[in-house]
Amino acid sequence: MLNSSKSTFLQIAVFFIGFLLFLNVAKAQQKIEKWSRFELVLNHPNPEESFSKVKISARFYNTDTCFVVPGFYDGNNQYKIRFMPNETGPWSYTTTCNIPALNNKKGIFECVEACGNNHGMVKVSNTYNFKYADDKQYYPFGTTAYAWTHMSQGIQEMTLNTLKNSGFNKVRMCVFPKNYDLVKEEPEIYPYLIKEIKKDTTGKEIKVWDFDRFNPLFFQHLEKRIDDLCKLGIEADLILFHPYDKGRWGFDAMSNDLNIRYINYVTARLSSFRNVWWSIANEWDLVKTKTNDDWDLLSKNVATSDPYRHLCSIHGSTAIYYEYWKPEFTHVSIQDEAPVMNWGAAALLRNAYYKPIIYDEVGYEGNLKSRWGRYSPEEMTYLVWMGVIAGTYVTHGESYMFKNNTDTIFWAKGGAFKGTSWRRIAFLRKIVEEGPGPLKLSDVSRDNRTSSAGNGYYIIYFGKEMNDSWLFNLPVKNSPWEKVKSGARFKVEVIDTWDMTIQTYPETFETTPENDYRVYDKDFKKVRLPLKPYIALRITQISNENSSKKSN
Amino acid sequence: MLNSSKSTFLQIAVFFIGFLLFLNVAKAQQKIEKWSRFELVLNHPNPEESFSKVKISARFYNTDTCFVVPGFYDGNNQYKIRFMPNETGPWSYTTTCNIPALNNKKGIFECVEACGNNHGMVKVSNTYNFKYADDKQYYPFGTTAYAWTHMSQGIQEMTLNTLKNSGFNKVRMCVFPKNYDLVKEEPEIYPYLIKEIKKDTTGKEIKVWDFDRFNPLFFQHLEKRIDDLCKLGIEADLILFHPYDKGRWGFDAMSNDLNIRYINYVTARLSSFRNVWWSIANEWDLVKTKTNDDWDLLSKNVATSDPYRHLCSIHGSTAIYYEYWKPEFTHVSIQDEAPVMNWGAAALLRNAYYKPIIYDEVGYEGNLKSRWGRYSPEEMTYLVWMGVIAGTYVTHGESYMFKNNTDTIFWAKGGAFKGTSWRRIAFLRKIVEEGPGPLKLSDVSRDNRTSSAGNGYYIIYFGKEMNDSWLFNLPVKNSPWEKVKSGARFKVEVIDTWDMTIQTYPETFETTPENDYRVYDKDFKKVRLPLKPYIALRITQISNENSSKKSN
Repeated sequence: MLNSSKSTFLQIAVFFIGFLLFLNVAKAQQKIEKWSRFELVLNHPNPEESFSKVKISARFYNTDTCFVVPGFYDGNNQYKIRFMPNETGPWSYTTTCNIPALNNKKGIFECVEACGNNHGMVKVSNTYNFKYADDKQYYPFGTTAYAWTHMSQGIQEMTLNTLKNSGFNKVRMCVFPKNYDLVKEEPEIYPYLIKEIKKDTTGKEIKVWDFDRFNPLFFQHLEKRIDDLCKLGIEADLILFHPYDKGRWGFDAMSNDLNIRYINYVTARLSSFRNVWWSIANEWDLVKTKTNDDWDLLSKNVATSDPYRHLCSIHGSTAIYYEYWKPEFTHVSIQDEAPVMNWGAAALLRNAYYKPIIYDEVGYEGNLKSRWGRYSPEEMTYLVWMGVIAGTYVTHGESYMFKNNTDTIFWAKGGAFKGTSWRRIAFLRKIVEEGPGPLKLSDVSRDNRTSSAGNGYYIIYFGKEMNDSWLFNLPVKNSPWEKVKSGARFKVEVIDTWDMTIQTYPETFETTPENDYRVYDKDFKKVRLPLKPYIALRITQISNENSSKKSN
Repeated sequence: MLNSSKSTFLQIAVFFIGFLLFLNVAKAQQKIEKWSRFELVLNHPNPEESFSKVKISARFYNTDTCFVVPGFYDGNNQYKIRFMPNETGPWSYTTTCNIPALNNKKGIFECVEACGNNHGMVKVSNTYNFKYADDKQYYPFGTTAYAWTHMSQGIQEMTLNTLKNSGFNKVRMCVFPKNYDLVKEEPEIYPYLIKEIKKDTTGKEIKVWDFDRFNPLFFQHLEKRIDDLCKLGIEADLILFHPYDKGRWGFDAMSNDLNIRYINYVTARLSSFRNVWWSIANEWDLVKTKTNDDWDLLSKNVATSDPYRHLCSIHGSTAIYYEYWKPEFTHVSIQDEAPVMNWGAAALLRNAYYKPIIYDEVGYEGNLKSRWGRYSPEEMTYLVWMGVIAGTYVTHGESYMFKNNTDTIFWAKGGAFKGTSWRRIAFLRKIVEEGPGPLKLSDVSRDNRTSSAGNGYYIIYFGKEMNDSWLFNLPVKNSPWEKVKSGARFKVEVIDTWDMTIQTYPETFETTPENDYRVYDKDFKKVRLPLKPYIALRITQISNENSSKKSN
């Protein structure tokens, strides 16, 4: 028999051990949402060469997957390793580091189901399109705000508010600040620490960067903005290099050694952000310090440094296309208006590349003198529709300048929209998302106006044509889906893409047998149309609801 | 002192030795025109396995080049090794063969300058265009006669006569016979010898091929026809595989082993023909027995078997493009009408592929029921112009059927032209060849009608537009050439592309300074135009003749 003091001691000891176990389990059970971010923070006194000499990474693994994820130095004596789990359940990790104190650190956490608007990373789906990791279709409707994170905090907040109330789900934006006509703002913060400030012969200050030391505050700020976008369901199409520097900061003219160190740092910090896309460059061919071989090297480096293979492309100046067939590029990101200005051109690049096509710059709605910055809102809307009807995607941009050179033009600075095409693009996005899947020309190379998205589902776009009526007719070919048959009944909705109305036509239509590659209504009925440009039709089979199932 | 008989004997001996030397030199001095064909014939009793087991090749070399050229068995106990020298002067050769009697045969010959219409092989020039080996520009204006060499000899002669009097300088044609709607003729001769003739259950004869034995007569005939084309200055765009067999002969369904043996045999026979191009396939994707990996394998094999690297591409069905960036393909050979039906599309594929673009099938002028075979001559001419104005090339074809299913439709059978677009294409070719170099859109992605070919040289095409006048104006951008300046004087010629007339406009024009990306005449003069479709302009600078030098 035990005496009571012994018993009490034992009870306390058991309780204490139990408490320690509980703490440990609590720690083990740190819960991270799938496709969200687990962050391991390790403290260690900061040696001078923390950015360049310390190699830290961790192996994250569960029963069937393993990721090796590099970490980074985040200032304040903190090393961080971030990880985006792609499967629910327990994950373990073990660190590897050339600082012994940070080596072989182990731990576990629990990945739980995603919720809310967390659908995971966007990936290529079915060759020409995109899906989130959870299989939800993603249709890119992007806009452009190259240097918005380099503007004042007030403008940044305004930009987020503008985007929140828009229909855009992607923003093209630069890591490095921008020095260009109409965009001369000096950023508050830089990606590198300043070594010294020199003066040139004219007395102008020249910052000498300490390329051995990134500025964690700069990247923490960028990350906050990317997270802000994520909360709004917006993908950050992050431009890693661009030519808009011209000797002002020198970030376009670093050595490849520094470029790769920069890529490694950025990918270590940001790969775990599910809404990041890599745009290796904007207007790559205008960066005069880099050759195609350099771009190949840098692109490969991004692809290999990112353990999750986020979407990745590269963007040139007008009509200058990169070798997008290379495996580093998940999709095509082109600057060119020609493919969407006329009928029958946009789909050609699908045929050529066998990848999703995003016309990421086709000119902007605005009032600038330059022809790239003065589309009417109607023209901007038209260009987006022209791309979408052909199974491709077109990015919006806005370049209105009302005050003077310092006006906040959304294209570079963000702020508030002054144009009106953005509303129409949101309206188009809604139509596309209501459909059974991605659009694809029904009868490619022959009918450039009719697109299918499944059995018995069509969108027809008339562009600038003004018609008072339209003889009901459809191509027999229906892309990869079932050909239209005789006796099928259809309802027609008339879409005014500018006034943003959708009206169901009061009559229904029933198809004839094939007549020279097309079918008509058995009574050759017509649809009355408003005699206006920018009209589209949504045509849906009603005779057999089951045949218009989702398919993509 | 020698006596006379001794002296006579010596004289005879010296003469005889001299004669032998002379004979040897005469043999050494066999003269072969540059880019023409040297043929070494070696006799040896024909073993059964001559096609498959005998390996014969020769090393041809001069002081700075060396080619290793495979030979082939040509029947009648003859092995042949053919070589196309690319440099003048003496060439030597040494054979290698697994038959000792044919091994280590040596010889020399003399390569002399090319003359007449021998300009050598056509090669890619300046990324998007073609030149002959002697640097003469080659602009492909091709037509299509897939199975012409498989028709009766009379039709073949008629075809040659038709081509002779046309402006075409390229013909797409198949090695294997064709079995397709409207083309059912049984060829007189086959590429393989017949092992036996079986009968199927219906009593129909089925030929069983001896795939170990090619039929030299078949290939000799093909070669004669390729040489006939060469005399006419026409390139043979030779289609090695196609889907138009459908179990009739089985040439579309051979094993890759046999396919490669076939490629080796064809390239050994034909690589020395300077006017041969390799088209790996017509409508590759419709050959259901082959995968993309098979096509890659076969394409690579053609490229490596051909010591001269003749032009090489592969052709798919409508809007199905191959991976033309692969190094085996020297140019892009596409079936698709979409790029040339509308403005602004044709040039996109230049941007995508960085290779010359030939739209080798855009449909045909004709009267068939199928939409691919019923363009008006105006439409066919228009499509060719639409390609050319964008710096690409478009192949003609004709599919008129007047009698019945057995009518000789040029598209497959050759014969005589029944259409009228061919004359207009010859007229276009003349215009292009009169220019200073290949055309290229002056202001790509913005002006799809104006093409430049050097400093101060433009072609503008109005397509289907009917205009009674045209305000003189040019884009300031002039492709890679000098921008148009203020005060430059121009003459204008009005081209009726259908009626084939060129009229010099009586007035000249003088440019204003740049006004929103364009220049105008200083008095804003217009050119009066006939109110007709298919009008073009040729605009040539006259103020400074020196500035319109050849450039390409």
